[in-house]
Amino acid sequence: MRQSNLFYKTQKEFNNQELSKNAQLLTRAGFIHKLMGGIYSYMPLGYRTLNKIENLIRQYMVTVNGQEVMMPVLQPAEVWHKTGRWDKIDVLYKIKGHGDKDYALSPTNEEVVTPFVTNFISSYKDLPMSVFQIQNKFRDEPRSKSGLFRCKEFRMNDLYSFHASQEDLDSYYDKVAEMYMKFYTDCGIGDETYFTYASGGAFAKYSHEFQTLTDAGEDTIFILPGTKIAINREIIDDKAALRDIVPNYTDGMENSFEQRRAVEVGNIFKLGTRFTGPFNANFVDKDGQTKPVIMGCYGIGPSRVMGTVAECLSDDKGLVWPEKIAPFEWHLISLAIKDSETAQVEDLYRQLRDANFDLLYDDRQNVRGGNKFAESDLIGIPNKIIAGRNFFNTGNLEIQNRATGNTQQMNLADLIQFARKNKCK
Amino acid sequence: MRQSNLFYKTQKEFNNQELSKNAQLLTRAGFIHKLMGGIYSYMPLGYRTLNKIENLIRQYMVTVNGQEVMMPVLQPAEVWHKTGRWDKIDVLYKIKGHGDKDYALSPTNEEVVTPFVTNFISSYKDLPMSVFQIQNKFRDEPRSKSGLFRCKEFRMNDLYSFHASQEDLDSYYDKVAEMYMKFYTDCGIGDETYFTYASGGAFAKYSHEFQTLTDAGEDTIFILPGTKIAINREIIDDKAALRDIVPNYTDGMENSFEQRRAVEVGNIFKLGTRFTGPFNANFVDKDGQTKPVIMGCYGIGPSRVMGTVAECLSDDKGLVWPEKIAPFEWHLISLAIKDSETAQVEDLYRQLRDANFDLLYDDRQNVRGGNKFAESDLIGIPNKIIAGRNFFNTGNLEIQNRATGNTQQMNLADLIQFARKNKCK
Repeated sequence: MRQSNLFYKTQKEFNNQELSKNAQLLTRAGFIHKLMGGIYSYMPLGYRTLNKIENLIRQYMVTVNGQEVMMPVLQPAEVWHKTGRWDKIDVLYKIKGHGDKDYALSPTNEEVVTPFVTNFISSYKDLPMSVFQIQNKFRDEPRSKSGLFRCKEFRMNDLYSFHASQEDLDSYYDKVAEMYMKFYTDCGIGDETYFTYASGGAFAKYSHEFQTLTDAGEDTIFILPGTKIAINREIIDDKAALRDIVPNYTDGMENSFEQRRAVEVGNIFKLGTRFTGPFNANFVDKDGQTKPVIMGCYGIGPSRVMGTVAECLSDDKGLVWPEKIAPFEWHLISLAIKDSETAQVEDLYRQLRDANFDLLYDDRQNVRGGNKFAESDLIGIPNKIIAGRNFFNTGNLEIQNRATGNTQQMNLADLIQFARKNKCK
Repeated sequence: MRQSNLFYKTQKEFNNQELSKNAQLLTRAGFIHKLMGGIYSYMPLGYRTLNKIENLIRQYMVTVNGQEVMMPVLQPAEVWHKTGRWDKIDVLYKIKGHGDKDYALSPTNEEVVTPFVTNFISSYKDLPMSVFQIQNKFRDEPRSKSGLFRCKEFRMNDLYSFHASQEDLDSYYDKVAEMYMKFYTDCGIGDETYFTYASGGAFAKYSHEFQTLTDAGEDTIFILPGTKIAINREIIDDKAALRDIVPNYTDGMENSFEQRRAVEVGNIFKLGTRFTGPFNANFVDKDGQTKPVIMGCYGIGPSRVMGTVAECLSDDKGLVWPEKIAPFEWHLISLAIKDSETAQVEDLYRQLRDANFDLLYDDRQNVRGGNKFAESDLIGIPNKIIAGRNFFNTGNLEIQNRATGNTQQMNLADLIQFARKNKCK
């Protein structure tokens, strides 16, 4: 894509509309635009990044047999009354429609997915079954000041699994937990993300959160020394839980745990029959007996992940995207002045597109090189391809890595080779 | 994908929950599931079809320089008051949030896109600019009885263009109109879709609707004899408009126009300054003068298109999808009984996947061939690959076209060749 056509505009100055670092950077780099607190529009760069994150999730969903569906977010009050959550969730947006009909605007989807999926389940042969979706969800957040961390409207990937037994749920749950960690690693935040024990509700001892360390986070976690495991604030005072979770626990040990601020980038939950119960979702087992379906749910917030990566991986020059979720993998920067030089870069652009480079092309004529570099750093595309003096004279390009700052000289053929090798990693 | 794992279930019998043919068929074939009138969940087959339609739209959007963005559907009342539409749109869902704050749930997006895009426009050099999105939209429909034709929550592709002059809008508008018709042709409803004149509002003589003929449609159009052009009911009595639109118009001529029921599958609108005015969206022109930005909007409803194709192209056996929007292009149907036969088909499946066939594989062991064929016809996948007696003995497959019923015998190598040729068409 040509940068001269791209719908975006970067800002050098601090944006006084945004208090959080992630929204500050994403706004200045032309990724998002604030409509009001907690409600953003995604510009092409932001939409591409979000899309990369969501497509990466889709790839991982397949590995746990998730099938993509799309459920409505406008949901009749009846299903929310059935589970008793109509009056319990204080961030639930409620709408009155024609005919005095009440609706909820979905903050989570158990009330719809449970009757939807189990409608098609009658026998143990229909189990296990997993469906997922990626869509906008809604929470009536009283304070939305952390950019993409806490929004009124946000992106959500929710996966739901249905099982014939607790054992089957348990092993599936472990698989999803492992898969989640791989996803965060791909997003560049794996090292800072902790598998965190949280309270489990009526049907499980614990649920688990994936918490990424950042001072901008709204949660506090307690890290088990020398591990990637942590405990949430809500159960840190529960001695029984500590004895259960912490190897060789001794009284007061938790006081030595490192206490850190973090943002929750995912959570997984064993629901048991919490929702299949109210909806009478049963199946006939091998032994001919009618039993309730056992259920799990798993959530990643793609827009919050985007905000977290912006918050955690950025530096003083701007955003730093890992290749798998960058808006573009490559940024071709033209330093052409003469017409013959422009023609050379145009030809290069054509060849890179033919070689399937995921490429933004800074073709702007009236912008100085220094400004182009600064803007590229702010946007955070992983690799610059600089077509400057050297290229016009010798055909050699300068390849610069955004994260490390390392540069290499190579010609087009070598670059294509280099990109291929990189892709296979 | 293996059919034995697919989340779906077909129904042979008439579904008494659904009165419209499109919802009847899509429900029976396992594409959609009704939550309540006008609100559906999309199962994997339905989601895939919708996705194919939306990705086809994305390809066309690029041809008119549309850049994909994502705007919120939860919108503060203020922007709707600004354009005077808060109290004028009777299908607008209104929500009250924390702090007594009023929101609209977007049925259309001018109130957000106008300040969003024009915020980045200051000079004629920033124009023209086009952005689009594909997302769920909402209308508080008092009656929702036509399946996917009229939903409370539905998919929408909305494109918005911004121009420095009326002439530039006019020529862009014509390009979009032409592009829309190509899209409907790809969806198999081109022949039945009419470019229909409708009233234009304060800033244009006419707007245009794309109307597809079907007795299930809720609109009535009047076709100009021998053309693909029609006139909407709302302006058929407007003599001045008729004189303007109909070549060599003579009084009463409209009485001879064919009157047909149709469903609106798209509409395009020259907005002029209807929305840029209230938002003070101006730019500085070449001559240094400050002028209001000129705007157009263009909409296709992907879910309604899906319903229209289901309604119009189906036959007494079920759905008939054109290849470009089918949930799968190919349906491999195994008639294996012996283990050795199953192994042969499994090997074939592997080879077809390696050759990138977009393929559903009916690998079910306990379902009779006749039932597999009937189910395939109901689902409407364009091409069956039947691995039966002949295949086990000679390696020859039977390829059957869903729309025509034509069958051909060919071996795997020929099939791969045949698919490639088909794809290039």
